[in-house]
Amino acid sequence: MKRNAVVVAILGVAVLGTSLMAHAAKPEDAIKYRRGVMAAQGWNMGIMGAMVKGERPYDKADFAQRAANVAALSKMAHEGFTVAGSETGETKAKADVFLDKEKFKGGMDKLETETAKLAQVAASGDMGAIKPQFGEVGKVCKGCHDNFREK
Amino acid sequence: MKRNAVVVAILGVAVLGTSLMAHAAKPEDAIKYRRGVMAAQGWNMGIMGAMVKGERPYDKADFAQRAANVAALSKMAHEGFTVAGSETGETKAKADVFLDKEKFKGGMDKLETETAKLAQVAASGDMGAIKPQFGEVGKVCKGCHDNFREK
Repeated sequence: MKRNAVVVAILGVAVLGTSLMAHAAKPEDAIKYRRGVMAAQGWNMGIMGAMVKGERPYDKADFAQRAANVAALSKMAHEGFTVAGSETGETKAKADVFLDKEKFKGGMDKLETETAKLAQVAASGDMGAIKPQFGEVGKVCKGCHDNFREK
Repeated sequence: MKRNAVVVAILGVAVLGTSLMAHAAKPEDAIKYRRGVMAAQGWNMGIMGAMVKGERPYDKADFAQRAANVAALSKMAHEGFTVAGSETGETKAKADVFLDKEKFKGGMDKLETETAKLAQVAASGDMGAIKPQFGEVGKVCKGCHDNFREK
């Protein structure tokens, strides 16, 4: 009886495992996801950057929404890099993303922290505080791109 | 003097216009942006869908984060369709996106409303409330895809 229970449990796990595997993410979808999130980051950063540089009129509400967008996207970016098999394909991710996972995750965590701060100061509308914090976010972007992204 | 002031004003607008145009969004970037946002929607909706259908174990915090992601992304999606010149290129957007802008915007606004509701019920963790609201979001997705997206 005890043995049967174990067999049933193992079978249960096996069935669950198959079911979960059947819905596991495809590597190409994970790549599409992370590239999509990054493209959305770039779009919003580019427009905020133009405002910070005075190349586009500063609009407090618009800037604040974009800062909120970037903070929200920063929470999504990392997951797309965690899917097995997504090391190759339509990706500019360097091997180190998958080899030095801790360092990469550290960069992504920093992005989350700094963009959250940007969203906070953006809501204040004080360009004197926004400008340096936007610079901090830009530094995090550049740092990770230099280390983990093919040119 | 009055005439000079007008000339100066017109020149000012012209210079501003040129400056803004110089930093206007490129159609291909707008397409990349909206496709990126949509890919990110699809990724999160897919995983939530698997949980709702019981094909993936329900994780309250994970589901709530994904619902928040989708609500945040819904605020971004429309802008990518507003850039002149993005009617053609690497896009599955039907001409009606640009011809019947009001109807399209109405769909996007509905997406924002329904995903915000989903994020709210997701935080409660009550699957009895989550399931029908997830269905509402799915309906909005499908409605817009049927009307505005090439197969």
